[in-house]
Amino acid sequence: MHEIEGMTEFLIGIVMIIGGMHGNELTGVYLIKLFEQFPHLIERQGFEILTLLANPQAIAECRRYLEKDLNRCFNKQDLQNLTLSSFEDKLARQIYNNLKSENQSQINMFVDLHSTTANMGLTLILIKLHPWLLQLAVYLSSINPEVRILYIPSHAANSFLISQCELGFALEVGPVPQGVLNAVLFQKTKEIISVVLDYVQAFNQGSIQSKTNTLALYEYAGTIDYPRNEHGEIQAMIHPQLQARDFEPLNPGEPIFLTFDEETITYKGESTVFPIFINEAAYYEQGIAMCLTNKREIVVEAS
Amino acid sequence: MHEIEGMTEFLIGIVMIIGGMHGNELTGVYLIKLFEQFPHLIERQGFEILTLLANPQAIAECRRYLEKDLNRCFNKQDLQNLTLSSFEDKLARQIYNNLKSENQSQINMFVDLHSTTANMGLTLILIKLHPWLLQLAVYLSSINPEVRILYIPSHAANSFLISQCELGFALEVGPVPQGVLNAVLFQKTKEIISVVLDYVQAFNQGSIQSKTNTLALYEYAGTIDYPRNEHGEIQAMIHPQLQARDFEPLNPGEPIFLTFDEETITYKGESTVFPIFINEAAYYEQGIAMCLTNKREIVVEAS
Repeated sequence: MHEIEGMTEFLIGIVMIIGGMHGNELTGVYLIKLFEQFPHLIERQGFEILTLLANPQAIAECRRYLEKDLNRCFNKQDLQNLTLSSFEDKLARQIYNNLKSENQSQINMFVDLHSTTANMGLTLILIKLHPWLLQLAVYLSSINPEVRILYIPSHAANSFLISQCELGFALEVGPVPQGVLNAVLFQKTKEIISVVLDYVQAFNQGSIQSKTNTLALYEYAGTIDYPRNEHGEIQAMIHPQLQARDFEPLNPGEPIFLTFDEETITYKGESTVFPIFINEAAYYEQGIAMCLTNKREIVVEAS
Repeated sequence: MHEIEGMTEFLIGIVMIIGGMHGNELTGVYLIKLFEQFPHLIERQGFEILTLLANPQAIAECRRYLEKDLNRCFNKQDLQNLTLSSFEDKLARQIYNNLKSENQSQINMFVDLHSTTANMGLTLILIKLHPWLLQLAVYLSSINPEVRILYIPSHAANSFLISQCELGFALEVGPVPQGVLNAVLFQKTKEIISVVLDYVQAFNQGSIQSKTNTLALYEYAGTIDYPRNEHGEIQAMIHPQLQARDFEPLNPGEPIFLTFDEETITYKGESTVFPIFINEAAYYEQGIAMCLTNKREIVVEAS
């Protein structure tokens, strides 16, 4: 793994918690509103915590976005390209400039709250295998076995807002429909945020003992689209045997789709994979029926 | 119950199956597309079957509607009010005029396909207690114990398209997120449609023996909104103990909401009710956290 160089030499000054990057993912939206109403819920000693409702207009309309997925607008080239004029391109530049004016270099950590119609449980999404984040991942996994760690390499995630920050990560919880609050998932997400903030406080106070440990990491390896006809219309659904089985092994020859006229389509890959984001509503239009990951056990070494 | 007068004296000439009244309820949308691609699936002897994708623009955008809920635009006054100019008001008039030009009096039955994020299972929604429909309800309940019968009196449902037809009813299936296909619910809905069409064919052939039987009817009795603050923002979620318990008894004093700061709110009514459409995504904006029904056993008499 990476060296954990310098890990004990920095302190976390500002954490920003983000909700409503997608306006119909209500868990994050209402957690941010709750935190803004009752700041003591997230106040900790020794560092500042900011909140952001990323796309208020999309939240008001309860839509993922108005013109373009906001969380695909943050790569550096796009932010500098003033000819990009969609509502969300402009909003991304505004958010980025606000962050800079708040002295972005002081913001050490982004926590971006998302929800999904897929059975993703409580998933921590990392886009960099930063040793500090891996220690956090080990810690969260150890106190809550429901927590899973997904790694999307930054080349596939460089348009996410969290890519703007050294310690950026997302929390992805599900299954919950778009436009719906699930009280159990809401409370679990709130609890994880609380644990993360406690961990940051303890880290700053020097009371985190980093440990060498193994971690189950699901590493993004691509996507599978639905079967489509010549007009781009889907011709099949997620197979009942695969529905809700995110993070479970899928072997070659096992069912993945059921066509509308009831033909089973099997997985044609050559090795076992671990599908995630199975049947996520927002991905139909993106040509994604599920994402595939490889599961590996990594050793996270103590600093 | 109503007299079943004339029940054996008419034949059903045309059945129209409708999907996509709400553009993000994919079960109905893709069933209609399937039926249009493979008409033999719904062809029966002795009557004609039409299909309608009600709101193609909303379907293309995977939204419930563009400007206004289409299934609230079909009351007679609104259809005659040419000053109503929303996209869906115009579309409703167009659908209505098309039906008339197809000699609407020949269309005896509308089957309107809906899906919901609530745990509604397979629900037949009636807006008139027409004896023919009650016989159908008894039959469907008898061959599939999952089928439930919801009665929304027509004064509360006179803006539904199905109110335009003597034998109009809706199928409401769930739980499934908006914008998502669930293969199991898709197949169950398809099977119910097939059974209904077989029943119509048998009825026309005179081979349906109507029987006196009891039927469990859930009768619409109003709605409950989420607790809201002075800005209209919701302050609580469906309580975990009530989530997904559609059609189950709710007694006074039992939990219905959990506020964001974790206070339980109980049901303040004076008698047992049977909530439905619990946590339906589309109803947040309508001020509906759930609908309440009264359950009663009725006697459906043989003709």
